[in-house]
Amino acid sequence: MATVGVLRETAEQERRVALTPDVVRRLRDRDPVLVESGAGSHAWFGDDQYRAAGATIGDREQVYAGSDVLVCVHPPCDVDRLRPGQTVIGLLAPLTDPGLAGRLAAAGVTALSLDLLPRTLSRAQPMDALTSQANVAGYKAAIVAAEAYGGYFPLLMTAAGTVRPAQVLVLGAGVAGLQAIATARRLGAVVTGYDVREPARAEIASTGAAVLDLGDPAVASADGYARALTAEESTAQQQALQEAVTRFDVVITTAQVPGRRPPVLIPATTLAGMRPGSVVVDLAAGPHGGNVDGSVAGTTALVGGVTLIAAGNLAATMPQAASSAYAKNLLALLAALTPEPDLKDEIQAAVTVTHAGHIVHPAVRELLEGAAP
Amino acid sequence: MATVGVLRETAEQERRVALTPDVVRRLRDRDPVLVESGAGSHAWFGDDQYRAAGATIGDREQVYAGSDVLVCVHPPCDVDRLRPGQTVIGLLAPLTDPGLAGRLAAAGVTALSLDLLPRTLSRAQPMDALTSQANVAGYKAAIVAAEAYGGYFPLLMTAAGTVRPAQVLVLGAGVAGLQAIATARRLGAVVTGYDVREPARAEIASTGAAVLDLGDPAVASADGYARALTAEESTAQQQALQEAVTRFDVVITTAQVPGRRPPVLIPATTLAGMRPGSVVVDLAAGPHGGNVDGSVAGTTALVGGVTLIAAGNLAATMPQAASSAYAKNLLALLAALTPEPDLKDEIQAAVTVTHAGHIVHPAVRELLEGAAP
Repeated sequence: MATVGVLRETAEQERRVALTPDVVRRLRDRDPVLVESGAGSHAWFGDDQYRAAGATIGDREQVYAGSDVLVCVHPPCDVDRLRPGQTVIGLLAPLTDPGLAGRLAAAGVTALSLDLLPRTLSRAQPMDALTSQANVAGYKAAIVAAEAYGGYFPLLMTAAGTVRPAQVLVLGAGVAGLQAIATARRLGAVVTGYDVREPARAEIASTGAAVLDLGDPAVASADGYARALTAEESTAQQQALQEAVTRFDVVITTAQVPGRRPPVLIPATTLAGMRPGSVVVDLAAGPHGGNVDGSVAGTTALVGGVTLIAAGNLAATMPQAASSAYAKNLLALLAALTPEPDLKDEIQAAVTVTHAGHIVHPAVRELLEGAAP
Repeated sequence: MATVGVLRETAEQERRVALTPDVVRRLRDRDPVLVESGAGSHAWFGDDQYRAAGATIGDREQVYAGSDVLVCVHPPCDVDRLRPGQTVIGLLAPLTDPGLAGRLAAAGVTALSLDLLPRTLSRAQPMDALTSQANVAGYKAAIVAAEAYGGYFPLLMTAAGTVRPAQVLVLGAGVAGLQAIATARRLGAVVTGYDVREPARAEIASTGAAVLDLGDPAVASADGYARALTAEESTAQQQALQEAVTRFDVVITTAQVPGRRPPVLIPATTLAGMRPGSVVVDLAAGPHGGNVDGSVAGTTALVGGVTLIAAGNLAATMPQAASSAYAKNLLALLAALTPEPDLKDEIQAAVTVTHAGHIVHPAVRELLEGAAP
């Protein structure tokens, strides 16, 4: 029995919370839960609801002091308050920010990062926060696109004639892309999908959407993410894509690779070739750019009549749905943990970044050692 | 053969344009078309597109000077530039603003208002701009609600469990309400509709949505709009509605009666009883209030954790779709007009407000005479 502490998120624009009252109710049979006052307020979960679910409400200091396991979405801004022997679980992005892992190791903290989960392992799927959050983001990307577009998504038959449906292109058919495809199709748009990976092309087709044919070879890599194209493949693909993109009213881009800069799928010249009134939603937009040349995460720009929405953290704009899913992922992970990290267990070995003063995750250690002078 | 002139809209936040290049192409076989430069720019129809469709582009003065028939969405701010013998066609709202009709009559202008169209006449349906614009607004209301709501609309089955669908209530089942119902259902929400009119209840049921039962009598009036409830009926309805509304995640209100103040369906106490995180879209919000107590048209407010979107002119936020439909309505009306207004024709008699120095529409004349000192 370990006390689980829920911290209020400190990242800007972050409205999610790591545990919801529903999940607290299921967790507290085994573990006491301590929730920082106001932790759920931006997701509309009030302290009263957590209290009714059996949690104790405290201030931040009390949560840090009284918890064995601290759960969060993003790493807290005051992560240095953690003390030896405590565990922290969240989307810690150690491959993008190995420095944080170094500090957590030095502090003697056990750090588990959900973004390191082996996603192809079926036992890990209920814990897969990257999937659950990408699902929210993909759904919301289609809604945001429909909101920004000046025409209808569906075909409509009216007394004054027939209205043609919107032509929507979704680039990248991972979890987010497939959910964007499904949602745009629900709304009645004619949807085309594209992905460089052969299995993803089959998944696009299975949703009923058309698969964009650029005449390029399908590729795959062992981890399920797309390998980088060769220079020659890339040039041919870009040229074909540039011509194709201008035929669409709405383009949603979703090509993300954790820990790497997202590939630019729509260069400025392609954007300039699109019809005024078109809408582009760049779901991959982040601190390192996005899939569209000129994307600044969290902003909307009008570029030659094209509305470019660099969406950034869309999951945070649906805090109820995203927090509920994330909390269930945490619940599943917590149930699978042993009191001491068992690094022979495939899941624990994958997500454990630091333990007992050491960085135990090889890829993170390599990054840190590579970065050392 | 009469020259048709298209004026740039002058109302604030108005992005629609009365004719689109597509409709100009169909019109100019019979009538020359003169378009004010920039008239379509906010709806992404450029001067070049109008020119390619066969229109002549001119400045505002040239359009006023060279046109026999001027078409618009809202009355232009400089309507006094019209001269005797010219015709103006638009949504002139003479029942709300009879003063404008008085000035147009005095100026010797023939004024036709599309909002006076006999909507139940099947021959008039291709001209029905109130319907086409309400259709846009109803669709957009559902999209705006989905954008603002922090949860999913659809039921989703995920690896971490099932997500329940959003519960959406649509109040008022005219054209806008039915389209809001259809769109929320497309997105996968569980939708309930409500209307005081019996035929509208049947239409809600025909969409597959549930009909909210408040135990109140269904009413109807001759013109298809709802009659006002008696004080007793109203109190009972309000009480039942107040209890029902708090069960929903999203409420869309659409009860509008042209020329009259919209009824308050959601008083402040009902709004206060809703769950934090719920969303209300008040599509009836306008200069005279809306269906929700405290609605200020064009604004979004957070009231006790409930997002209240007083949507105002939603059709203007989808300028391509709304303008295309409006232009087709105008095309149908223009084809039905005789060179001199034929007041024995049911449609022309209904829409003609002023002609040859007189107010010829009885209801408008009554309003003006009643207002005279």
